[in-house]
Amino acid sequence: MTRLRLLRIAMGLTLAAGITAAAVARAEDQDVIDYRVHVMKTMGEEVAAINLILKSEAPTESFATHVKILAVTAQTAKKAFEAEVAGVHAKPAIWANWSDFAKRLDELQASTAELAKVAETGGVAAAGPKVEAALTCKNCHDLYRVPKS
Amino acid sequence: MTRLRLLRIAMGLTLAAGITAAAVARAEDQDVIDYRVHVMKTMGEEVAAINLILKSEAPTESFATHVKILAVTAQTAKKAFEAEVAGVHAKPAIWANWSDFAKRLDELQASTAELAKVAETGGVAAAGPKVEAALTCKNCHDLYRVPKS
Repeated sequence: MTRLRLLRIAMGLTLAAGITAAAVARAEDQDVIDYRVHVMKTMGEEVAAINLILKSEAPTESFATHVKILAVTAQTAKKAFEAEVAGVHAKPAIWANWSDFAKRLDELQASTAELAKVAETGGVAAAGPKVEAALTCKNCHDLYRVPKS
Repeated sequence: MTRLRLLRIAMGLTLAAGITAAAVARAEDQDVIDYRVHVMKTMGEEVAAINLILKSEAPTESFATHVKILAVTAQTAKKAFEAEVAGVHAKPAIWANWSDFAKRLDELQASTAELAKVAETGGVAAAGPKVEAALTCKNCHDLYRVPKS
C-alpha cells in the first residue's frame, strides 16, 4: 500500500468519525431541548389548570395539588437548563448570564414552594390572591425566551 | 298590546334565554375539556421526561422528582373526569362504565405513588425497572380514549 493510499484511508476515517460525532452531538442537543421543553410545558399546563380553578371553571378541591405539582416541577427547571444548548425558545443569553438566570429560577422555586404551603393549609381563599405574584415566569421569559411569533 | 304580540315577545325571550343557556353550557363544557387536557398533558410531559432519563438523555438527579410530579398529578385525574362531557379524546364509555374507569385511575394513582416512594429512596437503579409496570396508562387509553388519527 502506498503512503498516499494510506493517507487517503486515514483522511476518510477521520471524516467519517467527524460526521458521526456531529450526528451524535446533534441528537444529544435535541434530547437536551426535548427534556427542558417537557419541564416548561408541565409548568405551562399546571399554570393553565390553576387559572381555570381561580375562575371557578375547574375543581377547587384540586387547587393545592396543582400548586404543589407546579412547585415540584420548578425544582427541576434550573438543572434542565444547565447544558448549554440554545434553541427553540432558549436564548444564548441564558448561558451568557447564567448566574442571573439561575437566580431567577431559584426565586421561582422559592415563590412556588411558599405558595404551595399556603395553598395546602388555606386553599384558594388564602393562596388565590398570591398566585400572580408567585408566578414570576415573565421575569425570565422577557429576557431569556425567544418571543413566540 | 294584543295577546298575539305578547305571545311573540314571550317566545322570543324564551328562545334568547335558550340560546344563552346553550352558549353558557358549551363554554362550561369547553372548560371541563380544557382542564382535563391540562391534567393529561402534564402526565404525558412527565412520562416523556422520565423516559429520557431512563435512556440517560436527561439529568438522572431529577428522576425521583419527575416520578413524584407524575404521582401527584395522577391524584387529580379522577376528579378531572367526573363531569360528564365526552369529547376530544374522551369516549362516552367513561361515564357508561364509571366504576371501572375510576378503578383504573385509582390503580394508576396507587402504582405511581408506590413508584415515587421507590424512586425517592432507590433512584433509577431501584425504580427504573418498575416504571413500565407502574405506568398503566394503556389500560385506560385502549378502552376509553378515542384513538389518535
